[in-house]
Amino acid sequence: MTSGTEGGALRVALMQMQAMPGNLAGNIAQIEAAMRAEARLGTRLVIAPELALSGYGAGDAIRDLAEPVDGPSLQRLAELSRRTGVALILGFAERAEGILYNSAAFLDGAAPPVIHRKTHLYGDYERALFAPGTPRPGTVQCDGLRIGMLICYDVEFPENVRPLAQAGADLVAVPTALPCLPGSEFIARSMIPVRAFENQVFVAYADHAGADSRFSYAGLSSIAAPDGGVLARAGTGPARIAARVDPAAFAASRAANTYLRDL
Amino acid sequence: MTSGTEGGALRVALMQMQAMPGNLAGNIAQIEAAMRAEARLGTRLVIAPELALSGYGAGDAIRDLAEPVDGPSLQRLAELSRRTGVALILGFAERAEGILYNSAAFLDGAAPPVIHRKTHLYGDYERALFAPGTPRPGTVQCDGLRIGMLICYDVEFPENVRPLAQAGADLVAVPTALPCLPGSEFIARSMIPVRAFENQVFVAYADHAGADSRFSYAGLSSIAAPDGGVLARAGTGPARIAARVDPAAFAASRAANTYLRDL
Repeated sequence: MTSGTEGGALRVALMQMQAMPGNLAGNIAQIEAAMRAEARLGTRLVIAPELALSGYGAGDAIRDLAEPVDGPSLQRLAELSRRTGVALILGFAERAEGILYNSAAFLDGAAPPVIHRKTHLYGDYERALFAPGTPRPGTVQCDGLRIGMLICYDVEFPENVRPLAQAGADLVAVPTALPCLPGSEFIARSMIPVRAFENQVFVAYADHAGADSRFSYAGLSSIAAPDGGVLARAGTGPARIAARVDPAAFAASRAANTYLRDL
Repeated sequence: MTSGTEGGALRVALMQMQAMPGNLAGNIAQIEAAMRAEARLGTRLVIAPELALSGYGAGDAIRDLAEPVDGPSLQRLAELSRRTGVALILGFAERAEGILYNSAAFLDGAAPPVIHRKTHLYGDYERALFAPGTPRPGTVQCDGLRIGMLICYDVEFPENVRPLAQAGADLVAVPTALPCLPGSEFIARSMIPVRAFENQVFVAYADHAGADSRFSYAGLSSIAAPDGGVLARAGTGPARIAARVDPAAFAASRAANTYLRDL
């Protein structure tokens, strides 16, 4: 289930996974299998969807499955990252001082996890479960590639992507859970490439596949390039897609499209 | 040369004109012919491209062709607007207290003209000719439709569209001159509909056709709707396109996509 254009510096893979709601062990096993498979393909970074550990539609069970950053699930995945050399960005329910956040973690071997907490919660379902995070635009480094993190609805606001680009991000990683609604296909197919183009960054948008008792997911995960082209795109079913993310290959696009300089 | 989906409140037409560089009388005649033809079709608003009076590529001749807001060309077009009932938005070179601006004017019969001065000048060509305008987000009204104005490169920055939507714009009118460059087709086909969707407004993007001694133009003028759909789109040659712009027809999209409320 691997596809995508390759030919650059750092291979990034997206898991468009069918998470099992409430089945923490099963979802971790899926992610571990993907990391091991991608390690054999030379992938440096795997990106899994929003709330990948609990499943997005698990409802109140998410409260019980939430963990702190130093909880057992992230520790286990970080240990696999250390063994395989594959970094992981995934969505999970984070418990911090009694408050629940819809968070993304960057795990890269022995390095301390780096967290983004979703700032723009979507709809009543999320607002009933989570507190919004405070925007703190910053990037992490992965073999010199600078990565910013957003979650789902966050990326639909251009105001959230711009500060990451201004902070030097080459790639914006976006675990997401895009339900099948009017507009969802437009978001996946048109808005994600435009976010890449208008900031001259790569955008990796990792969605769920399938359905749970609450939501059906649109799939259509993609890796968009600074010139607005799409390096890899999934269909609607479970898939892994990958592409070489190489900022130097888009130097001409960055020179011609001087949005960050002209703003 | 008229096409486009219709079925709403206020008919808007775009002139994708082949301006004659430096030929003020000829360009005015083209615009007047379009206004008269559109008056017969029930159009309420015609939008012409950036620097439509001088031609975009007229170079230094633009300095001599620049006029103040109360100059003879705009007065003549406003008089035709009064006689036909067709409002006009067009790009022109504005001279104000000895300074040249790349401006758009809204002319609606006897009402005083309203001006937007391009804030984000594009490239060395424009920067050698014009001073940038100061952002002053505001809207004009045309039979109750609230219209914001931007010019060309302005609309490529999401930061310029958002304040117009927040000021209540239903439609953002964008006279443009999109040269044939890598990325131009992406801007016309992908970015313009995304600007409409992310702000839940209509965007009318009126480009030049053909070529002059300095530039070739991409055409692809369009009217995009709040749901990201395209109501009318031109090809690359001279054309007029039109659509009914009816905010009420997109109430469902505005209710589902609550970007302005959630920002």
